[in-house]
Amino acid sequence: MTTPDTRLSSRPSTPVADTAPVPAPAPVPTTLDAETLWRQDRDHFVHPFTDFSVFHDKGCELITDAEGIHVQDIHGNRFIDGIAGLWCVNVGHGRAEIGQAMAEQATRMAYFSTFNNLSNAPATRLAAKLAELAPAHLNHVFYSCGGSTANDATIRLVHYYFNRLGKPNKKRILSRHNAYHGTTYLAASLTGIESNNWEFDTLDGLVTHLSEANLYRRPEGMDEAQYCDHLVAELEATIAEIGADNIAAFIAEPIMGAGGVLVAPRGYHARMQEVLRAHDILYIADEVVTGFGRLGHIFASEAVFDTQPDVINLAKGLSSGYAPLGATLISDRLYEVLGTPQGKGGVLSTGFTYSGHPVSCAAALKNIEILEREELCANVREVGPYLEQALATLSRHPTVGDVRGSHFMMCIENVADKDTKALFPVDARVGDRVAFEAQQRGLIIRPVGHLNVISPPLIWTRDTVDEAVAILDEALAATAESLRRDGYL
Amino acid sequence: MTTPDTRLSSRPSTPVADTAPVPAPAPVPTTLDAETLWRQDRDHFVHPFTDFSVFHDKGCELITDAEGIHVQDIHGNRFIDGIAGLWCVNVGHGRAEIGQAMAEQATRMAYFSTFNNLSNAPATRLAAKLAELAPAHLNHVFYSCGGSTANDATIRLVHYYFNRLGKPNKKRILSRHNAYHGTTYLAASLTGIESNNWEFDTLDGLVTHLSEANLYRRPEGMDEAQYCDHLVAELEATIAEIGADNIAAFIAEPIMGAGGVLVAPRGYHARMQEVLRAHDILYIADEVVTGFGRLGHIFASEAVFDTQPDVINLAKGLSSGYAPLGATLISDRLYEVLGTPQGKGGVLSTGFTYSGHPVSCAAALKNIEILEREELCANVREVGPYLEQALATLSRHPTVGDVRGSHFMMCIENVADKDTKALFPVDARVGDRVAFEAQQRGLIIRPVGHLNVISPPLIWTRDTVDEAVAILDEALAATAESLRRDGYL
Repeated sequence: MTTPDTRLSSRPSTPVADTAPVPAPAPVPTTLDAETLWRQDRDHFVHPFTDFSVFHDKGCELITDAEGIHVQDIHGNRFIDGIAGLWCVNVGHGRAEIGQAMAEQATRMAYFSTFNNLSNAPATRLAAKLAELAPAHLNHVFYSCGGSTANDATIRLVHYYFNRLGKPNKKRILSRHNAYHGTTYLAASLTGIESNNWEFDTLDGLVTHLSEANLYRRPEGMDEAQYCDHLVAELEATIAEIGADNIAAFIAEPIMGAGGVLVAPRGYHARMQEVLRAHDILYIADEVVTGFGRLGHIFASEAVFDTQPDVINLAKGLSSGYAPLGATLISDRLYEVLGTPQGKGGVLSTGFTYSGHPVSCAAALKNIEILEREELCANVREVGPYLEQALATLSRHPTVGDVRGSHFMMCIENVADKDTKALFPVDARVGDRVAFEAQQRGLIIRPVGHLNVISPPLIWTRDTVDEAVAILDEALAATAESLRRDGYL
Repeated sequence: MTTPDTRLSSRPSTPVADTAPVPAPAPVPTTLDAETLWRQDRDHFVHPFTDFSVFHDKGCELITDAEGIHVQDIHGNRFIDGIAGLWCVNVGHGRAEIGQAMAEQATRMAYFSTFNNLSNAPATRLAAKLAELAPAHLNHVFYSCGGSTANDATIRLVHYYFNRLGKPNKKRILSRHNAYHGTTYLAASLTGIESNNWEFDTLDGLVTHLSEANLYRRPEGMDEAQYCDHLVAELEATIAEIGADNIAAFIAEPIMGAGGVLVAPRGYHARMQEVLRAHDILYIADEVVTGFGRLGHIFASEAVFDTQPDVINLAKGLSSGYAPLGATLISDRLYEVLGTPQGKGGVLSTGFTYSGHPVSCAAALKNIEILEREELCANVREVGPYLEQALATLSRHPTVGDVRGSHFMMCIENVADKDTKALFPVDARVGDRVAFEAQQRGLIIRPVGHLNVISPPLIWTRDTVDEAVAILDEALAATAESLRRDGYL
C-alpha cells in the first residue's frame, strides 16, 4: 500500500568513518585537563547515535565554549555553528540573561510538584504565553521534557481521548517513512527512518507509515501537483484499507527534518488535513524543529502551511536548548474531553515529575522574550531567502544533486550522478566528507548519511551566510577532489 | 500465576475531593497577580495527575518561593516541605550555588549535541563522577531527561543487547504490581498501579507483573522469612512458565515508592537476583527515588540491599530536581555488547537531544558536591531512624494501620479497622483529609489514595522531625474527628 523510497531509507542514519575522514575527530589532547576529559568521556559516557568503531579509537571532541553564532572546542578551535546545537539554539549561544533567569528561578523556587492542584508561576505564565502565540483554537498546554516525550505523551493522550469518547478501536497512528519523532519506545515506533531502529525493537501494529513527501525523488513524470494528488490518494487508500474507525491520528513534521529536510508539494498539508477531518482522524503537527522561528514564524502550521492541527508539539526552540523542555499544545475540542472529570477518584494519570519545571519554563519565557524583542522571526524571513539563494549556487558542484529546504532549515543532497540521482556507496561517506572539510574551514554542519543539514541559529546575518556559503563552496570542491582521489568520482 | 493485592490496586492513585476537603485548595486570590496567575493556570495548564472535577472549580495553588526545608505559596503561607518537591529536592530549596553553576554553564555553553563524537565537559565530568560513586561494575552512563525516559531507554537498550547477542526472544520484562516506573507508553506499561492507567492504553505482552512485596498485607499466617520464600517461589514459577529464553529483565524499585513505600522482606532483593542470574535475566534497579541519599547512601542497591544490578536508573535526587535529568548506569558486561561497533555505517541509534545536557549536568555536579560536603547521607543515617521512631508513635491513632518505610522514605497507611486492615470507602478520601489537616498546620505531605507519604529533603534535623510529627499528630486527631463527624468512623 505504501511505497517507501528505499534508496533513502537504506542509508546509515549518522556519519561514521573508518577509511574516510570523520567530521569531529579528537586530536590527541594536548593539555592535561583536555586529556583527562577526553579519557573520562571515552571511558564513561555512552553517547547517543554514535558509531563505536570510531568512538573507541578517537573518542569525542568536547565543545566547551559558545558565543553568538560561534562554538569553540577544548583546544581553542572556533567554528560557526551551522546546526544551532541540534536544530535548537535558536537565539544563539551565550545569552547571559537566560542563564540569569534560570539562576534566579533556581534560587527562588527551583522545583515543586505540579501534580494534585499545585502549580508554579513560570509554568503558568509560559502556558498562557504559548496559548497567546498559538493558533486561536490551541489553548491548553501539557508539558514534558523534550520532543520524544512530547510525542509519546501526545499519543497516550490521543488514545485516552478516544477511549473516553467510547471509540476504543481508534488507535492506529499514521506516520511517514523517514519521519523523525524521537526515541522513546513509542516515539521510535513513530519514527520512519529504518536505520534508526536497526537492532532495536519497535511496537507492532500501532503505526502505519505512509510515503514521505519527497519532491526530489518523486516518481518519474509527475509534476508537483500530480505528486500531491498521488500522496493524498495514498492517504485515502490507507484509510479505506485500515478503516477510519481504527485510526486515531496522523502525525507529521511540517518539513521533515532528520529524514532529509523534505519540503512537501504545495498544498499537501492542507489537503491531508481535509481528508483526515472528513474521517475524524486527528492531525498532530510535530513542530519540534519548525517551531519558534526556523521558518520565519513562531509556529509554521497555520502561518506557513495553512493547517489547523489538533495538536502541535514543541521542544528545541521553545527553550533554545538552554534547558530541557517539551510542550504539547492541545485544541479546545480535545481539552473538552481530556478535561472532563472521570468521576469519583479518577484523575488524568499521566505526566512527568518535570512537567512544567519552573527553571526550564523560566528559560523558555526569557527565550521567547528575546525572540520577540530582537524580531528574530523577521530576521529569518529576511535572511532566509538569501540563505536559500546562496546555497542554491552550490548546485554547480558535481556532487550536489539537490539543495532544498526553507529559510533556516536547509539541506544539501549529495549524489554520484546528477542525472540518475544515484547515490555514492555508503563507504564513500560523502556527508561525512563534506562536514569534515567544512569543519576544517571553521563551519559545523550536520552530516546525515549522504545529506548535509544546515539549520543555523536565527541570528545569522547576510554576512554570516556569505561566510558560511564560501566555506561550503570550498568544502564541496575539496570533497569532490577527495572523492576523485579515492576513486568514487 | 501472580496474586495481586486488589485491595491496594483498586484505590485511586491521587487525591481528589468533592465532599471531603482537598489538600491544596486555592483560596480566592487576593492580589491582582495571584488572581491573574490563578486564572491563567486554570485556563491553560493541563496538569499531570489531576482531578478535573476539583481543578475546574478550585484551580491550583501556586508555590512561588522556597528556602531550605520550607516552601511558600503565592499568598505568603509557609509550609515545611515533607515531600522534597516530589521525592527529589534532596539538598533542600534555595541553593544559590546550584543556580549559579547553572547560570555559568548556560552562559558559557548552554547546549551542543552529544551525538556523532561530540561531547561537553559537565556531562563528561558527571559520567566519571557517577562511575566513581557507583558499585564497581557500573562504569557507563547513558543520559536522559528524567525517570520515565531512563526506564524507557533502559528497556530499549536491554532489547538491543539481547538482539545483538542473537537472543531475539529474550524480550519479556518482569515488573511488579504497584510498581511505579514512569509515564511514557513503555514506562507506564512497566508501572503496576492499575488506577494509573485507567482509560490509558498500555503495551500488550511485553510486561508481566509479579506480586509486590507487601509485608503489611502479606498472606495470613506467613512470617517474614516464609513470605520472602513465597515471593521468590513466585518468581521461579513465573520463569518456568514463560521460559528464561523469553525473559530479558526484572525491574524493581529497592523500596517501592508511589505504590506505597513498601519495604520488602529481609533478603528479598538478593535472593531475587540470585534466581535471575541463574537464568541469565538482567536485574534493573530503579533508584530514581532511593538514589542520592534517601536511604542514607548514594545508591541503595549494594549498600543497603546487597544487590549488584546490571543497570541502575537515576533521576530526581541526581540533580535534586534543580534541572531535568535522568541517567542509566550500565554494567561493564552490558557495555561490552552495547559498545561493540555494529559494523560499517551502524550506530547505537538511540538517545535524546538533551542527553547529557550541559546545564542539567552542571546542576547535578554541584548537587553531588553539596551532598558530599554537607555529609547529607550521614545526616539521613542519623536522623532517619529518629524519624522512623517518631512516626511509629503515630500508630496509636485509631486510623493508622501501618507506619513503614526506611530513613527519609516513609509512609502512613490509613485504615478503617486495624484488626481487619479494612480500608475506608474511597469517598472518605482519608489520605486527602490527613494531608489537608497537615497543610492547614504548616506541613505538606503527599496523599496517595488512602496513604500519606513523607519523603523530606535530606537536611531535616531532629528538630524538624519533632515539629513535623507534632503537626501530623494533630492532623491525625483532626482527621479522626472529621471522619467521625461524617460517619466514616
